[in-house]
Amino acid sequence: MTPFELMYQLIIIGAGPAGLTAGIYAKRYGINFLIIGQILGGTINEAHLVDNYPGIKSISGHQLTKLFQKHLATKIKQEQVEKITKGNSVQGQIFKIATNKGNYQAQSLILALGMKIRKLDIKNEEKFLDKGISYYTANNIRQFKDKTLAVVGGGDSALTTALKAADQAKKVYLIHRRDEFRGAPILIKKVKEKPNIEIIYQAKVVGAKGKKLLEEIVLDNKKEIKVNKLFIEIGGIPNVHLAKNLKIKIENNFIVTDKNQATNIAGVLAAGDMTNNPLKQIVTAAAEGAIAATSAYKYLKRLTN
Amino acid sequence: MTPFELMYQLIIIGAGPAGLTAGIYAKRYGINFLIIGQILGGTINEAHLVDNYPGIKSISGHQLTKLFQKHLATKIKQEQVEKITKGNSVQGQIFKIATNKGNYQAQSLILALGMKIRKLDIKNEEKFLDKGISYYTANNIRQFKDKTLAVVGGGDSALTTALKAADQAKKVYLIHRRDEFRGAPILIKKVKEKPNIEIIYQAKVVGAKGKKLLEEIVLDNKKEIKVNKLFIEIGGIPNVHLAKNLKIKIENNFIVTDKNQATNIAGVLAAGDMTNNPLKQIVTAAAEGAIAATSAYKYLKRLTN
Repeated sequence: MTPFELMYQLIIIGAGPAGLTAGIYAKRYGINFLIIGQILGGTINEAHLVDNYPGIKSISGHQLTKLFQKHLATKIKQEQVEKITKGNSVQGQIFKIATNKGNYQAQSLILALGMKIRKLDIKNEEKFLDKGISYYTANNIRQFKDKTLAVVGGGDSALTTALKAADQAKKVYLIHRRDEFRGAPILIKKVKEKPNIEIIYQAKVVGAKGKKLLEEIVLDNKKEIKVNKLFIEIGGIPNVHLAKNLKIKIENNFIVTDKNQATNIAGVLAAGDMTNNPLKQIVTAAAEGAIAATSAYKYLKRLTN
Repeated sequence: MTPFELMYQLIIIGAGPAGLTAGIYAKRYGINFLIIGQILGGTINEAHLVDNYPGIKSISGHQLTKLFQKHLATKIKQEQVEKITKGNSVQGQIFKIATNKGNYQAQSLILALGMKIRKLDIKNEEKFLDKGISYYTANNIRQFKDKTLAVVGGGDSALTTALKAADQAKKVYLIHRRDEFRGAPILIKKVKEKPNIEIIYQAKVVGAKGKKLLEEIVLDNKKEIKVNKLFIEIGGIPNVHLAKNLKIKIENNFIVTDKNQATNIAGVLAAGDMTNNPLKQIVTAAAEGAIAATSAYKYLKRLTN
């Protein structure tokens, strides 16, 4: 294969709501583009219930991903991006993407790599992963019937998980390291009203015990609680390490973008959870993807003069 | 009724994608809010086909509006806002809204009044709406393959539409009432270079003919041109007149907002087509509505501290 066969006008990295929407718009603009994304849907793919994407009252993250994919109607390269570099060709500046399966080149980039889920970093966390410990609420809440669960976190997702789980579970412990929640007041109110949710403030989970499956968690006050399941919902870290190679401006771990989703590097746009935009929601990630594709289109148009 | 009975924490003015999404989020934040909007759905309500809202491949604007409304599940005051003023109460700064039916007060405002599309005002304009005549910038260019199109206008959006359409269409007529364009020089240059764009200066479209679908347009010099589609891109007027009273910063007729959708007036946010954001799409309007509601929530939180 010659380099030309692998040259795209635009490569979108990431296949969450931002990347998929960037693709939907890139296609509308007639751009020759490629999407590379290892996890279709990104983090939403594993969300039990999405009820904040305007126009779709309630849907699983998996199903919403399918709707975005259906709308996009373009094949996605499900590969792991390993390196992004900037180089030059006879046509000017190009970006080179190395994945676990191949090499690709593009005249412009949209980075939409999302965030990585934050872990507790306790012993046995890995051991009990999917054997009692989870970072997402499972799709089928009926499996919690008459079970005892624990949720760690203080934001909207922790509160939502606690509420959903409490509908089926015998008992839900909601464990938060601070003395007040930072989630939406309506969710906080509901959590406090739910009789089978016990809130434990100013506590940390420091241990997990069990034979094959999780049976017990240990708090920093030495208290031990028997649970069937532990949901860890303490946020995430933007996946910016691949962007660092391009010398992209990063602040507090987020890529700095302007209103056009442009970064400080010409031809490189960014969208979604990895940017420094003020709100991290599916609809804002999608909007940023649309804006980034529009900016890529304008950038490519200027190149051809 | 005492003034207290009509006092809200937030009033959202406008019931298009921006206003409705602001409502969906305000409800999630537990804000005591009201939406006032005369036309449910705003301009999208009139769109025959919406195929650019991510996740919903194809839907009428009317149906999409219904989905947003169903998601919101809150009654909307379908009233005509006549005046917005800023005043003071014992609780501090308040905003007073006078409609054709009543008076309302709020501690904060989200302005989402959209734009009014400028029409040609010719016979049959209504008849062929979405049957050949369109006011929206078309970015789904592939449907124009081998078609003959006309675009009316002389600004950036008319030039951009002509260029995009010409990539696929057999022939594009670009009709402008003046003898030079007012768009960006780079776009003008490209339009002039494109072999399948024919520029007709100093001409007006005065008629539209066809059976069910548009087949022909008539110019003021009596010339008749066979076309499959006519894009009227002579601009729109943001509905900012109501905001002027509040001394909100306006540039080129658009309300100036920051990344949090904040205007220069504390407690007043703006979202959607009436703001100076770079892309005017349903998904971007919705995202701005979500961000504006989040900012209103933070503003109200600060008031109660």
